[in-house]
Amino acid sequence: MPNAQPIGIFDSGIGGLTLAHAITELMPQENIIYFGDTAHLPYGDKSATSIQSYSLKICNFLMEKNCKLILIACNSASAAAYDLVKTYVGTKAIVVNVIDPVIDYLNDSWEGKTLGLIGTKQTVNSGIYASKAEALGKGIHIKSLATPLLAPMIEEGFFNNNISEQIIKEYLGHPNLAHIEGLILGCTHYPLIKKQIDAYFQGTIPVIDTSRIVAATIKAILSERDLLIENQSIPTRQFYVSDYTDSFEKSTQIFFGETIKLTQYPIWD
Amino acid sequence: MPNAQPIGIFDSGIGGLTLAHAITELMPQENIIYFGDTAHLPYGDKSATSIQSYSLKICNFLMEKNCKLILIACNSASAAAYDLVKTYVGTKAIVVNVIDPVIDYLNDSWEGKTLGLIGTKQTVNSGIYASKAEALGKGIHIKSLATPLLAPMIEEGFFNNNISEQIIKEYLGHPNLAHIEGLILGCTHYPLIKKQIDAYFQGTIPVIDTSRIVAATIKAILSERDLLIENQSIPTRQFYVSDYTDSFEKSTQIFFGETIKLTQYPIWD
Repeated sequence: MPNAQPIGIFDSGIGGLTLAHAITELMPQENIIYFGDTAHLPYGDKSATSIQSYSLKICNFLMEKNCKLILIACNSASAAAYDLVKTYVGTKAIVVNVIDPVIDYLNDSWEGKTLGLIGTKQTVNSGIYASKAEALGKGIHIKSLATPLLAPMIEEGFFNNNISEQIIKEYLGHPNLAHIEGLILGCTHYPLIKKQIDAYFQGTIPVIDTSRIVAATIKAILSERDLLIENQSIPTRQFYVSDYTDSFEKSTQIFFGETIKLTQYPIWD
Repeated sequence: MPNAQPIGIFDSGIGGLTLAHAITELMPQENIIYFGDTAHLPYGDKSATSIQSYSLKICNFLMEKNCKLILIACNSASAAAYDLVKTYVGTKAIVVNVIDPVIDYLNDSWEGKTLGLIGTKQTVNSGIYASKAEALGKGIHIKSLATPLLAPMIEEGFFNNNISEQIIKEYLGHPNLAHIEGLILGCTHYPLIKKQIDAYFQGTIPVIDTSRIVAATIKAILSERDLLIENQSIPTRQFYVSDYTDSFEKSTQIFFGETIKLTQYPIWD
């Protein structure tokens, strides 16, 4: 029964658990397999070639696990490896990235507007949000800024305090983000500091949390193809990492809202 | 002529260039081969097993290059992999880590004192500085604190400004570091913020920059074995990384004092 096949989710580390959490909130019955490539974390400063090679190897694992859908739950990997992953996986699973659902959302609601985008160096330097928004032909303009200190800051638990406020203020006050009418959070870590970002803008512009948009897209795709699971009260959820440390396991609380048992899977041996 | 064989230096990334720089300052005639494992950067949150496996593979490369001495220019790798690397390399090269020279220095100058140590989670959680200082039997006590945000902060160029001052203040004011009589900088990145750390302590305690201690140890070892190179005006210096990005190359300026050409070497293919 293909509906019972799991949704596969992968990320460079445990930040993608914010997306896994959004998916379990919206589709609590779905079986889930998560793979965090903690051996190569973070992807944000890796080359596109390396990210492509890591992504394909992880997809081998998720295809062996018979996933019905594979979500690239990392903006850097979505920017660098989506086309390759989609071709590689072929008809064996549906492949979803975290960028296209946001572009579709912009298409519906943001005609003629100028939006800010913050993310890793990899995501921002790829220019993928800007070029995809441009291609919509609706006069949507993206102004972007690489904010590479935000992900480690969040991972180290520096949020909702004075230091994180200073770092956020320094980044968001950058001239690259002047006169924006909305801000896209282009990294899976950033929903955790959405409140502080909202506080910085004092409600003057909307801050777009992409995890809910992506989860809604996945639900729509599975529903359209009759692949949603029904009548299952206890879903199976498995969480793998390529390198295990206690510290990663503790941090799952931050990203998933509860502590998760992580299993090391030696994908690189 | 073994004296002409290069000094091999490896690190998880480009932070170890602070040590490479200290070595070239003290021994400007020496040939140098540097390997930065940027594909796995940072080592600070990796497991000991992973760091050991990466280190041995890099040593294969440095031994092929016929290095007379291999410096593990990374505290996390020195803590996790030194014994293994030393056994593995055997008589093919002298192996030096960045911790033992500091312990020898403490032995000479710090009897009965309490010192602070800051470093990555890997270095601090290994407890290696504390246990080695204890083993000296001279009543030297180490109080340590993991400061994982400092390395990414420095890599992103956040130093000598208000944000870095706040982060440094937050860390150094931690109760773990109360009543210390000196502070060891247990990460190759930290010499770059030594001025700010000195400013925090306002000269009340010495801040120990370990890169000079390590470079002096290497000079003493090579000199003792008659392995220093002489009469060479233009040394050969090669810098390899396991994953190349423009951003890494730009950052060499910060760590080495000048921009260096980085060559990608596909050690993991």
